[in-house]
Amino acid sequence: MNHYTRNDCEQLDQQDPLAAMRDAFAIPEGMIYLDGNSLGVRPKAAKERALQVIEQEWGTDLIKSWNTAGWFELPYKLGDKVAQIIGADAGEVVVTDSTGINLYKVLAAALTLTERKVIVMNGSNFPTDNYMAQGLLQQLGSDYEIRFAEHDNIMQAIDEDVAVVCLTHVHYKTGEVFDMAAVTAKAEQCGAISIWDLCHSAGAMDVQLNACNADFAVGCTYKYLNGGPGSPGFIFAAKRHHGKALQPLTGWWGHAAPFAFERDYRPAENIGQMLSGTQPILSLAVTEVGLDIFLQVDIKQIREKSQKLTQLFIDLMEQRCGQYGFTLVSPRDASIRGSQVSFNHEHGYPVMQAMISRDVVGDFRAPKNVRFGFTPLYISYVDVWDAVDRIVDIMETNLWQQPEFNQRGAVT
Amino acid sequence: MNHYTRNDCEQLDQQDPLAAMRDAFAIPEGMIYLDGNSLGVRPKAAKERALQVIEQEWGTDLIKSWNTAGWFELPYKLGDKVAQIIGADAGEVVVTDSTGINLYKVLAAALTLTERKVIVMNGSNFPTDNYMAQGLLQQLGSDYEIRFAEHDNIMQAIDEDVAVVCLTHVHYKTGEVFDMAAVTAKAEQCGAISIWDLCHSAGAMDVQLNACNADFAVGCTYKYLNGGPGSPGFIFAAKRHHGKALQPLTGWWGHAAPFAFERDYRPAENIGQMLSGTQPILSLAVTEVGLDIFLQVDIKQIREKSQKLTQLFIDLMEQRCGQYGFTLVSPRDASIRGSQVSFNHEHGYPVMQAMISRDVVGDFRAPKNVRFGFTPLYISYVDVWDAVDRIVDIMETNLWQQPEFNQRGAVT
Repeated sequence: MNHYTRNDCEQLDQQDPLAAMRDAFAIPEGMIYLDGNSLGVRPKAAKERALQVIEQEWGTDLIKSWNTAGWFELPYKLGDKVAQIIGADAGEVVVTDSTGINLYKVLAAALTLTERKVIVMNGSNFPTDNYMAQGLLQQLGSDYEIRFAEHDNIMQAIDEDVAVVCLTHVHYKTGEVFDMAAVTAKAEQCGAISIWDLCHSAGAMDVQLNACNADFAVGCTYKYLNGGPGSPGFIFAAKRHHGKALQPLTGWWGHAAPFAFERDYRPAENIGQMLSGTQPILSLAVTEVGLDIFLQVDIKQIREKSQKLTQLFIDLMEQRCGQYGFTLVSPRDASIRGSQVSFNHEHGYPVMQAMISRDVVGDFRAPKNVRFGFTPLYISYVDVWDAVDRIVDIMETNLWQQPEFNQRGAVT
Repeated sequence: MNHYTRNDCEQLDQQDPLAAMRDAFAIPEGMIYLDGNSLGVRPKAAKERALQVIEQEWGTDLIKSWNTAGWFELPYKLGDKVAQIIGADAGEVVVTDSTGINLYKVLAAALTLTERKVIVMNGSNFPTDNYMAQGLLQQLGSDYEIRFAEHDNIMQAIDEDVAVVCLTHVHYKTGEVFDMAAVTAKAEQCGAISIWDLCHSAGAMDVQLNACNADFAVGCTYKYLNGGPGSPGFIFAAKRHHGKALQPLTGWWGHAAPFAFERDYRPAENIGQMLSGTQPILSLAVTEVGLDIFLQVDIKQIREKSQKLTQLFIDLMEQRCGQYGFTLVSPRDASIRGSQVSFNHEHGYPVMQAMISRDVVGDFRAPKNVRFGFTPLYISYVDVWDAVDRIVDIMETNLWQQPEFNQRGAVT
């Protein structure tokens, strides 16, 4: 374990090839924002893009913007940009709808490719994927089964009964990473289809879907990709499945000829079949601004800096806050750690509220998980130092014991 | 048929109780926008609201805006506003997702309430509803059947084999209105469930869902409700179905306790069960601005003005353009005509392009339908006069025959 000083952190920032990217983001004065794994900060250019949609495209050009501003093409155009970030090819990704609905689509599509009835999922995952699978399987009938497994026994859970292995690449609570290459290879070897949820990896991890021969993936754009609150999700379907694995939310945007207004559905034979209805253009257009930032950088550099930032945070927390009851939940091994660090703390809720009051913004996940996300494009090494500095002060002074920090809002 | 002058139209505007509402909208200088049935114009206040989300809520307050800016409550808050416009009660509507996906949800939910297998739909309807039903029924199995019917034989098509009657209230091409009270009563009498698509009626018609005892409805907010391009759709489920008719896109927003992060899905017992994943907040927040305008007016006054505007347009077109080959497609009887007027014209495409070049903006639906929407909040009687005046000139001078007007874009 290295013993760092603030001066060391300043030097790391000076050598950081990504340091200049921070200027692309509007970071509130004084705030150390370690919650980009929940909602990424706003790219400065998002304001201009929103105004362009509001004033010119909607306000002045109105209906013709479907052509002149390329609204109809946005899901494909943005999809091609996401593809570059997750190791997919152009024409394999669309940006559309919510992650959960997208998961429903690809899981339903995958199940049309196989007679098998078992889906392997991670029971402790962020539960919306489980919920969506449960909703689908209830529709499809009682002979389907979800085989829940945790990290240690995922590989054993995959056998020749398995139809689909559907996992979130990076765990939302612990930040632990599944080995995408190994799991996908095991699935393939057993004749199972793989679906990856990239919510906590797109924009933070060096994801290589095609190199792993993954079948499908979904993810969100509002975390590490800085697309804005609730910005639309994405769907990846490997080209070999186009025209074959069809999803059931068969709206007109997924029709082979949407403007022919035919009575009956005819699926598009490309990734467009994953689309359903009309997209929320304002949110979608602004999403592109975040993606464009990623096209200027090397995702491998992001992953490298992410590992250094999380390692620095763990080291400093253990050196300087070791006596205050934080227990590391995230992996110590940086190679299987996503871009977040989680600790359990007996008084996690008020501790996090006190941190937020001192402008160290992470979040809390019941029952006692305090979670810190590290977004390499706008978090510096000095930020990590200063965050720990403030946490030390909060713990030393018992600030978190003030009653105001134990009042829970509706959304924690 | 009255023979109007422009002066008569000016007088109608002076007596119009809705005339002042036009000030709430940013209408491009010189444009007579008769396409509010496709994309409503921008409320002026939309710009300020978008900037508030971009700068303050996302930019500065970031993750805490889920609580402080009420993001999590938006689907319900906006739903309660839509409810007032469509004759529903508070707590019966949420604003979320696309209309097509919402149709899938309510149709799937409705089918869980019955053993019957026949769905009555309108084959010439805007086809996305048909497509969505086809996608769902293919999932559910081969014993389901869609019984397509047109206006004249809808009532006969509803019998005691019918599970669900799923109709669009106002026809997208002709503007013809189904009698919601009569059809819903017939469905109820036969033991069938009713679903109404209100895309072309919400904000233009005096819709009274609960007075008709309708079961479910969906609709969009970007046409007459001026929510912005692709702004989220809405779902109505009558209170008697809450906790019983469950939709299968079971994401965490529809869970009884979304922040408990339980492994298994437990449906919310209120309208929240119709929600799935995270909403596109920027688009959703801006949608509220359009809804707020409607809460200042009486929907009966809107319907009354709408009927007068469409009648004036028909009368003027027949008086002044009778010799130019326009054949009225919309009903002559204002009581069964929505807020649009459609004509067939042999050269509909270039004729509409020529109109647009002269700032009379309607739209074209293949093969030969020219469509004009009348939005009572921002269209005046003088606008109708002036629109026809320009159309007369286009036809007299054969402007539409210029080759430039016959070049078709990707999206017509």
